[in-house]
Amino acid sequence: MIDEQIFLSEQTQDIYPSRYSNSPHMIPRADPVVYGSDFSNAPIHRELIEQYQQQGFLVLDNVFSDDEVLMFQQELNRLSQDDALKQCDEVITEKNSGDVRSVFRIHELSPVFSQLASDFRTMELARFLLGDQVYIHQSRLNYKPGYRGREFYWHSDFETWHVEDGMPRMRALSMSITLTENFYHNGPLMLIPGSHHTFVSCVGETPAEHYRQSLKRQEYGVPDDRSLEQLIDEGGIVSAIGKPGSLIIFDCNVMHGSNGNITPFPRSNVFMVYNAMSNKVAEPFCSQKPRPEYICSRKNIRTL
Amino acid sequence: MIDEQIFLSEQTQDIYPSRYSNSPHMIPRADPVVYGSDFSNAPIHRELIEQYQQQGFLVLDNVFSDDEVLMFQQELNRLSQDDALKQCDEVITEKNSGDVRSVFRIHELSPVFSQLASDFRTMELARFLLGDQVYIHQSRLNYKPGYRGREFYWHSDFETWHVEDGMPRMRALSMSITLTENFYHNGPLMLIPGSHHTFVSCVGETPAEHYRQSLKRQEYGVPDDRSLEQLIDEGGIVSAIGKPGSLIIFDCNVMHGSNGNITPFPRSNVFMVYNAMSNKVAEPFCSQKPRPEYICSRKNIRTL
Repeated sequence: MIDEQIFLSEQTQDIYPSRYSNSPHMIPRADPVVYGSDFSNAPIHRELIEQYQQQGFLVLDNVFSDDEVLMFQQELNRLSQDDALKQCDEVITEKNSGDVRSVFRIHELSPVFSQLASDFRTMELARFLLGDQVYIHQSRLNYKPGYRGREFYWHSDFETWHVEDGMPRMRALSMSITLTENFYHNGPLMLIPGSHHTFVSCVGETPAEHYRQSLKRQEYGVPDDRSLEQLIDEGGIVSAIGKPGSLIIFDCNVMHGSNGNITPFPRSNVFMVYNAMSNKVAEPFCSQKPRPEYICSRKNIRTL
Repeated sequence: MIDEQIFLSEQTQDIYPSRYSNSPHMIPRADPVVYGSDFSNAPIHRELIEQYQQQGFLVLDNVFSDDEVLMFQQELNRLSQDDALKQCDEVITEKNSGDVRSVFRIHELSPVFSQLASDFRTMELARFLLGDQVYIHQSRLNYKPGYRGREFYWHSDFETWHVEDGMPRMRALSMSITLTENFYHNGPLMLIPGSHHTFVSCVGETPAEHYRQSLKRQEYGVPDDRSLEQLIDEGGIVSAIGKPGSLIIFDCNVMHGSNGNITPFPRSNVFMVYNAMSNKVAEPFCSQKPRPEYICSRKNIRTL
């Protein structure tokens, strides 16, 4: 009976409050990072899983073959040239040039990426790390063009998914498959090792329809300078560089971002978010309406 | 007599025309890179000079001691907190935050940097490479703060100095002394080796008082995408990374730029441009008035 009361109270209380105050707070993570425990059945080596547990991410090279990368790139080109698709909400364009920047919900729009979402190299690993059946919370193609590619400021994905989508706990992860080479020069993904152990509660209040702006340039739900500096003092910064076909797996709460890209080299990738079936989104932890279905699966949840 | 005619015609003709057409052009450099020839009297090793000749820049580590770097940093802090100075044209502020971004004409405003301009490690090397007496065409302190540091798009300094300041020929160079560590992460200076052998004639016409905007974000006098891609295909990209106290020497026509910087680590440096006394600026090669004295020495030219 006591246990049940605690359980109920945990369900109603927001243990990761954010955007409710004018001063930031750092809250220790209350959830596991790796939920799977039967290492004998793990799809990757135990050392890699321990590395993921400690730093909050993994970069695995040569996971996808050249032929697969070519197929993904062809599908990317096909989608970016689909004029009918450009009229859909799923397609996000560059603020200045109007070029396609991202295409959302690709696990449903494209047969190629639908298959990738259920591939054993991605799905089985997600299942093990999250210790549950999984579904796609969000998926997208990022074009990240060269020359005038914009920066993406530091953020924890979970902060946004929790506040704006109502994701209850930290039991989700992202997979990014690189489709072009990531150099030091072309604004690669930067991650702060160990930052996933702390939830940075951000200042300010979520404005209505924040997602329309935040997908281009995030202004709310970003960490304050001092919290960020503390995380970097403790963990440093790692750039995820490598050839096309790499798989970058990162925890939902690891702090990450990327500088802009003035080189001619685009930095395209496929991005999929796996969430545990036991962690399905509820009401947003803010006073706004939920974000649209193409950004956050809510009605259309399908176990992989 | 024939020689004299050729000489006269070269004086009146613009051999590096730019911003006069709607299509870009690539013009082979007509000037030497290294003007000094008596290598027995060179201030640095011959191999380094040959490297400079070939790639258009040199990065020399540990040129300035920790004590000197500390002195430069203290002078930087003093100047950035000088409220009277903030009212002067010499001080450029960040577009969004209003923070100090650069201070110009530091070789005259600051005794510390005046001395640095005439230091044997900088001035003697400039004299040798330019094969002439030298003066400071422009000098500045760049704060390049962290978190929200903006990118600086690819450009050749000479293109601007030629068009907007009337610098006749390629017989000038820049020296940048790093005051903070330059990592791959914090938007270091990127240079294209070999790009100094080609003058990229840019499209468009210079607007009036372009310098007011161009110091924050350059829109004219930047290379077109195809020319830039060609230069990078041939030469690649090198990032100038290293500890504080490094000396980066680069030719006036080498193509360079930097990505933005979302890390907390600022990327401050002292920047001085040496021009040959025989290459003093004349009338600008555009229809606009010359830029102000604090950006381009014109009246106040003093041999070092």
